[in-house]
Amino acid sequence: MPASKRSLFLTGIGTLVTCDPERGSGPLGEVHDAAVLCEGDRVVFAGPQSEAPRTFSEEPLTLDLDGHIVTPGLIDCHTHIVYAGDRLDDYEARLRGESYTTISGAGGGILSTVRATRAASDEVLVNLAERRAERLAAHGVTTIEVKSGYGLDVDQELRLLEVIKRTDRRTIADLVPTFLGAHSLPVEARRSEAGRRAYIDSVVHEMLPQVVERKLARFCDVFIDDGAFRLDEGRRVLEAAKDLGLSLKVHAEQITHTGASALAAELGAVSAEHLEKATDHDLRALATAGTVAVLLPGAALFLRDWHPRAERFRDAGVVMAVATDFNPGTSPTAHLPLMAQIAVLHSGLTLEEGLLAITRHAAQALGLQAERGSIRAGMKADLALFRCKDPRELLYEIGANPCAGIVKSGRYHRVEAARTARIRPGS
Amino acid sequence: MPASKRSLFLTGIGTLVTCDPERGSGPLGEVHDAAVLCEGDRVVFAGPQSEAPRTFSEEPLTLDLDGHIVTPGLIDCHTHIVYAGDRLDDYEARLRGESYTTISGAGGGILSTVRATRAASDEVLVNLAERRAERLAAHGVTTIEVKSGYGLDVDQELRLLEVIKRTDRRTIADLVPTFLGAHSLPVEARRSEAGRRAYIDSVVHEMLPQVVERKLARFCDVFIDDGAFRLDEGRRVLEAAKDLGLSLKVHAEQITHTGASALAAELGAVSAEHLEKATDHDLRALATAGTVAVLLPGAALFLRDWHPRAERFRDAGVVMAVATDFNPGTSPTAHLPLMAQIAVLHSGLTLEEGLLAITRHAAQALGLQAERGSIRAGMKADLALFRCKDPRELLYEIGANPCAGIVKSGRYHRVEAARTARIRPGS
Repeated sequence: MPASKRSLFLTGIGTLVTCDPERGSGPLGEVHDAAVLCEGDRVVFAGPQSEAPRTFSEEPLTLDLDGHIVTPGLIDCHTHIVYAGDRLDDYEARLRGESYTTISGAGGGILSTVRATRAASDEVLVNLAERRAERLAAHGVTTIEVKSGYGLDVDQELRLLEVIKRTDRRTIADLVPTFLGAHSLPVEARRSEAGRRAYIDSVVHEMLPQVVERKLARFCDVFIDDGAFRLDEGRRVLEAAKDLGLSLKVHAEQITHTGASALAAELGAVSAEHLEKATDHDLRALATAGTVAVLLPGAALFLRDWHPRAERFRDAGVVMAVATDFNPGTSPTAHLPLMAQIAVLHSGLTLEEGLLAITRHAAQALGLQAERGSIRAGMKADLALFRCKDPRELLYEIGANPCAGIVKSGRYHRVEAARTARIRPGS
Repeated sequence: MPASKRSLFLTGIGTLVTCDPERGSGPLGEVHDAAVLCEGDRVVFAGPQSEAPRTFSEEPLTLDLDGHIVTPGLIDCHTHIVYAGDRLDDYEARLRGESYTTISGAGGGILSTVRATRAASDEVLVNLAERRAERLAAHGVTTIEVKSGYGLDVDQELRLLEVIKRTDRRTIADLVPTFLGAHSLPVEARRSEAGRRAYIDSVVHEMLPQVVERKLARFCDVFIDDGAFRLDEGRRVLEAAKDLGLSLKVHAEQITHTGASALAAELGAVSAEHLEKATDHDLRALATAGTVAVLLPGAALFLRDWHPRAERFRDAGVVMAVATDFNPGTSPTAHLPLMAQIAVLHSGLTLEEGLLAITRHAAQALGLQAERGSIRAGMKADLALFRCKDPRELLYEIGANPCAGIVKSGRYHRVEAARTARIRPGS
C-alpha cells in the first residue's frame, strides 16, 4: 500500500450487504449499523460499527452513510461493450417480425457491427467503450467482463483486445478481457465448408497463441448456436484454449439447443451463458461441473424470447449469475440492477438470488470469488453505495438508479445525482 | 406574454419529432434540420430551419441542439404519486406466489398505503410527490396526471387533492388532478353491504360536490375490479361525476373482466386504463366512443400479468396511450420511456406507436390534445430535448435516460447528466 494513499472509513451504514451468509444474517449476510474500513486496495474491517477500530495511525477519510446501504461493487460478468455503430435497423426489422437468424443471415446482425467496428479507429472504440463502462459504473458496477468478437480476423481481434486493455487504463471499473474470436463467422468464411474450416484454423493456430503470449485475455468464449458455430467447431476452439491455459466460457443454448452447455460442463468452463433452451439434464451437468449459469434477461426481453425459469436452475443446484450482455444487437443496456429485477420478475429468482446474481455469483462466473463479489476483511475494497434503507429497494423501482457512489480499490468515487437529476431554471 | 420573459429559439435540431403527421414526414411528423421558436408559453414557429424567422424585436435566448432530437414534452397520463410508505413486503409476498387479491384481502395492498398516507403530514406528502415528479421530469415529462385515492374518506381525499395542487406549484411539470375516491373500499366499509353503500354515498354526496365546487380535479376515475368496486357501484360514481361536469376515466378489466370498459365507452370517458382482460367487443366500443386505451405495462410487468396485444387495439381502431401508473404496490416506476419500450417489446406496439403513446395520444387521454402532445405554432411550448440522433433511440437502450433537458411553458430547464452520471475522484 503506497503511503500516500489515505485509508477510507465508511460509517453509519444502515445495512451492510456482505453477500456472505457467514458474515451476517440471511442469504445476503446482512449486518446492521455497520462500518467498513479500507486500507490500500483492501477491506481490513467489515462488521458492526461497535466492533470497528477506533484508533488509527493516520486519520482515515471518513464517510457517514446516514443509514444507507453498502453492497459489494456490482459485477457485470458478460458484456460486449467494444463496438461501433448501432443496430436500430435490425431492431425495427425484428419488431416487424423478422427473426434474428433471418436478419443475421441477410448480412445484418453481428456482421453489420463487425463492419462498423473494423472501420472505427482505436481511439473511437476506446471512447465508446469508456462511455459505456461509465454508464455501468454509474449503476454501481466495479468489475466488467468485456469480450472481443466484432473483429473476426487475426489483426482485428487482437486490436480489439488491445482496445479493451487501453480502455481499462481509463475506466474506474476493472475490465476483465475475454477472447471471442469465435463470435460469428466472418462473411468471407461463410461461402463454403472450407471457408469455415479456414476461419476456425486461424482462431486456433493464429489468434489464440498470440492472445495467450501477449496476455490479452483471461477467458476464451465461443458462440455455439444456429447461425454461429457448430458444436464440433466450438469444441476445437475451447479445447485449444484450454490447452493454452485460458479459462473457458460458452454462449450456450440461446436460440437452439446444441449441446453446448454439456460441452461447457465437460471442459470445466467457469460459466455457460444464456441457456434459454437448456434441458434439466444440461443444468444438472453444469451443477456437477461447478459451471455458473449466466442469465441474460436483456437479450430475452429484447428478442422477445422466453425467460428460463429459476426453479429449474435452483432444483438442479446451478449457481445463477445475471449480466447485461451489453451489445447493440440483442441487449443494449447498461442497467445491471434492472436486468436482475427482470430476472426476478420474469424468471422467478428471489430478491436475494437477484442481488447475489450481480455480486457474489457474478464474481464466481469470472473465477474472482476469492477477492470480489462479497465483503469481508482481506477482499478487494470494491463497494457500491446506495440511497436505500432496505436491500430489497435495489430491485424495486423499475428503471431507477439509487447508486450514490462506488468504492474502487479503496478509493471513493461519487456518482452524480443519477436518480434525482435536478432540473435547473435556464439562464 | 409578460414583457420580461425572453423568447426561446431552438436551432440545429437534427430531427424535430412533431408527433403530427400533417407537419412532417412519417407517422411521427419528422422535420429534419429544424428550429422551434417559443414566445411566452407558446410555440410560434416550428419547422425547417431555412424557414425560421431571422429577425426579432428582442434577441431570443438561443440554444443550438447540435443535431439532436426534440419531441413534445412527454405526458404521463396515469399516476398515483401522492402517497407515503412503500410496499416492499407486498412485493416480496407476490414474488413468493401470493396473488394481488389475496394480499389486498389480508389488509396489505392498497390499504397499507392508505394507512401510511393518512398518517403523513401534508408537507411530507408534498415533498415525496415533488421528488417523484422531478424523477419523471428528468425523463422528459412535462405533464403528469395525478390521482387521489389513498385517503378514502371525505377529509383525506380532499386533502390529497389539495396536496396535488400544492405540489403542482413547486414542480416544473404541470400536474393534472384526478379524483379517485373510489380507488378501494376503506377497511371500515368492507364489513357489510351497508358499509359499501355508505362509502359510495359519501363519494357521491359528500366528496364529489366539494371536489367540483373547490375545482380540485379535472377528472373522476373509478377502480372497477375484483377486490375494488363493482360495476353498479362504479356506474353510480361516474354518472354522478358526469352530472357535475367532470370528465371521466376508468380503471377497467385489469384483474378480471367486469364490463367496466363498456361502461367507460357508454359514458364517453376520455380514457379506459389497464384493459389486460378486455375483449375485442370492448375494444370496438372504446374505439366508437373515442375513448383512449391507456396501457400500463409497468403493472403487467410488476404483477407478472400478461401484456395485451397491440394488434387487437390497432384492429379495433382504439387510440393507445402508455403511462407509468407510478404507484408503490403494482407499478413503482418513474421511467416513462422504458414503459413505452416495454409496451413495444411485450405488447407489440411499433416504435412510432410507442412514441405517440407518451406524447400525442397521452395528451388525448387527458383531453389536452389541442394544446399539448404535438408541436406546431399555437401549441403550448412544452418540449423534451434528447441526446439522440434518431428518434428510435428513445426506445432502444433499455433503462437509459438520454434526456438532456425540457422546455416547459417556453422556459428551458437543463436535465443534469442523468445518462452519463460522472464519477469523480473522491476528495
